[in-house]
Amino acid sequence: MRVCIVGCGAIGSLFAAHLARLKDVEVWAYEVNRAHVDAINATGLRLSGFSQVHSHPKASADATKIPPCDFGIVATKSQHTRAAMEATASVFRDAAVCSVQNGVGNEEIIAGFAPRVMRGTTFPAGRIVEPGHVQQDTGGKTWMGPFEPKPASMAEVEALAAKLTESGMETLAMADARGAQWTKLIFNAATNPIGALTGLPHGVACDQPQLRRLISGLAAEGVAVAKALGITPDSDPEKLIDHAREVAYHHKASMLQDVLGKRATEVDALNGGIVRFGEEAGVPTPLNRAIQALIHGLEHSWTRKD
Amino acid sequence: MRVCIVGCGAIGSLFAAHLARLKDVEVWAYEVNRAHVDAINATGLRLSGFSQVHSHPKASADATKIPPCDFGIVATKSQHTRAAMEATASVFRDAAVCSVQNGVGNEEIIAGFAPRVMRGTTFPAGRIVEPGHVQQDTGGKTWMGPFEPKPASMAEVEALAAKLTESGMETLAMADARGAQWTKLIFNAATNPIGALTGLPHGVACDQPQLRRLISGLAAEGVAVAKALGITPDSDPEKLIDHAREVAYHHKASMLQDVLGKRATEVDALNGGIVRFGEEAGVPTPLNRAIQALIHGLEHSWTRKD
Repeated sequence: MRVCIVGCGAIGSLFAAHLARLKDVEVWAYEVNRAHVDAINATGLRLSGFSQVHSHPKASADATKIPPCDFGIVATKSQHTRAAMEATASVFRDAAVCSVQNGVGNEEIIAGFAPRVMRGTTFPAGRIVEPGHVQQDTGGKTWMGPFEPKPASMAEVEALAAKLTESGMETLAMADARGAQWTKLIFNAATNPIGALTGLPHGVACDQPQLRRLISGLAAEGVAVAKALGITPDSDPEKLIDHAREVAYHHKASMLQDVLGKRATEVDALNGGIVRFGEEAGVPTPLNRAIQALIHGLEHSWTRKD
Repeated sequence: MRVCIVGCGAIGSLFAAHLARLKDVEVWAYEVNRAHVDAINATGLRLSGFSQVHSHPKASADATKIPPCDFGIVATKSQHTRAAMEATASVFRDAAVCSVQNGVGNEEIIAGFAPRVMRGTTFPAGRIVEPGHVQQDTGGKTWMGPFEPKPASMAEVEALAAKLTESGMETLAMADARGAQWTKLIFNAATNPIGALTGLPHGVACDQPQLRRLISGLAAEGVAVAKALGITPDSDPEKLIDHAREVAYHHKASMLQDVLGKRATEVDALNGGIVRFGEEAGVPTPLNRAIQALIHGLEHSWTRKD
């Protein structure tokens, strides 16, 4: 089996490093950060923290150097999905490609470049410590299933999930992965931008009663949109918010890290996704819309020339 | 006529400096910033920018040094109203005291310390350049009227308004000043925190369609609360927002200045006031509530020890 990880940052590196431990899987990493690529090719890819892994995927910033693959795992920030798929399309001419990205809307883009697509959702989180070295902060499962409009076969889903589980990343193959995806979408949309706008870690924000009420209001809008689309979140977002408060009290959400670094955020795939699907389903989402507007305003404040 | 300005910051200084030009008005300024007090007593109070004034009010950080006054004009930040009134209560034993502060709820506090109270709303804005020197950024009118639960007489309202107008600050005496007050409340609550959360000046925020929609949504909630209370805003907040975009495109709202300086904001008198009065009137205010929560979260991020 040959697999290409598209976007080998904090999340992509977890997949690449784990899979590359297996003798029967050839792992390629497509990544535009050349320092990370060079480090991986020179001394391998190292995970510390939650996982202790040191393995040797092949890495390249030039997709034409990557041979055709059986599977793709897309792990870029959602705003980079299109550019990454344009660059790697030739790698996936006969592949099944799975998004493990945040938010919704990525599979629709991937389907423009790959013949067979999977929805995926992953919970582990981490950060790049230095080129070639990623710290895994939290563990958790990954869920995969066929993307309905242009599906990978269940046999493909099960094959990829089995190899990931064998490599140490527990992955569930599901006929319908929408519930898992929307659960994480709703959780991320309700919590990430709150950290980004206030500077507060997840648990501290949860302990402010007014903010917790806002978080719950955002989540309730997401649940209403999911229901209108016929999707049942596979767990209660409120419980997930409480659980994250327990296990990741001091965690700074990735969107807060983006804001601190003045980088474009994933708000359009998170709150923007809930707003977009809400419009399609006729469900009002005023709080998610407000949050999307505020994050866009913040992003604009870093780049405006006026 | 003897008048005490309570809180001689950017706004209080506009009132103190103008009134002190009149020969028949004795002006005292109560202010806790001793550098500003000392400068005023040493070389007078100077306004530059929109107004060119140099006059000599008397200033003190010790309210026991201030003789009993006929009138008070309270211009502290709203979160300091109670402490300032506790300190100056003896000055106002037989006075009519007017708030010219942002937001709602200040008159209710003042009424606990003074026998007769006025609602006031003022549009001029400025900032302290250095001790004894305030830059006036914008002009505009001031509106005053009796505070219904513990009213000053119309004769008092008219006497104070006439002296302010004579001094160069155009002031209208009104039987019902609630419409003017709520117009400014709604404008401030809809625009100030947007600047504070995004870092954008007023006009730039207005030109972002998503943010303008949020601003309009916040204003609509305020108008709905005002109507439920039987208050008619004396002008359309949307027009005021557009007007401010024209005349103050690059203006950084006072709440943004507070956030940049990591100082407590006036959100509880602005969005918090709309939420509170909305609860009393049975009008939902989810957007103002969300904004209040986010600003509180931001304030908490500066002071938390966890």
